[in-house]
Amino acid sequence: MIRPATAADVPALVQLIRALSEYEKLSHQVVVDEARLREHLFGARPYAEVLLAEDAGRVVGYALYFHSYSTFLGRPSLYLEDLFVLPELRGRGHGKALLARLARIAVERDCGRFEWMVLDWNTPAIQFYEALGAALVPEWKLCRMTGDALKRFAATAA
Amino acid sequence: MIRPATAADVPALVQLIRALSEYEKLSHQVVVDEARLREHLFGARPYAEVLLAEDAGRVVGYALYFHSYSTFLGRPSLYLEDLFVLPELRGRGHGKALLARLARIAVERDCGRFEWMVLDWNTPAIQFYEALGAALVPEWKLCRMTGDALKRFAATAA
Repeated sequence: MIRPATAADVPALVQLIRALSEYEKLSHQVVVDEARLREHLFGARPYAEVLLAEDAGRVVGYALYFHSYSTFLGRPSLYLEDLFVLPELRGRGHGKALLARLARIAVERDCGRFEWMVLDWNTPAIQFYEALGAALVPEWKLCRMTGDALKRFAATAA
Repeated sequence: MIRPATAADVPALVQLIRALSEYEKLSHQVVVDEARLREHLFGARPYAEVLLAEDAGRVVGYALYFHSYSTFLGRPSLYLEDLFVLPELRGRGHGKALLARLARIAVERDCGRFEWMVLDWNTPAIQFYEALGAALVPEWKLCRMTGDALKRFAATAA
């Protein structure tokens, strides 16, 4: 079963975010906490939306998404930030059900694209996405400014 | 001079979007029109914000951006979708001024990251960004579902 998350789901969601970061070998980057996540998802200025997958009444996976925008298409896109299903509950269709629901939301909201990023070593995920009709766009590289470099550069603004 | 765009700037902005698409060799993808862009930027549900660079009273460049969200940081990011300065007016600091203003907005809004994508063949741009303190994150690949593939998959949603 797929359903939108509510504020009451935030503790379960934080646990899933931590589990995802361990799977991605990025747990050293995780500093999320419940109060801030609740404010950012369900406060005055929501930054993202969340779908949950349930199995026998237990939350076993999530998809966090928001809208980006393509000037070339002149339409919003649906951008999937995180997709995760607990490893012990994979192979039961939860990931595919989350993605299909997101694709439906993208079409309903007149989005030109449904996009996300995948780690280049995650071959099973890439094959799974391609089998569903997605394609890698390998010529685009992610560029990031963060931490002290961001603060230093911000201070140069006129 | 850097200033936020208003609805009156939409015609100039559409011209710049077309010029960017020609520079990126992607003009066959561009279907933007003024009415839709005005609605998406200045309507009931704005999808993005725009800064303009002016030179002697003429609009010569733009940056279109929105907020993404990092669950690992538990904070929004500032995502730059397009950055463009007319080729004949480069080398005068407009691009750097747009980026610095965006970095300042990112810091003011408590964003953990300032991010964008760059085409892997655009070596001058990559070197420019790295000199400002940004870094490529090459292990992430963009994955996209669009057009008929998106509609087909959406139709499978439960």
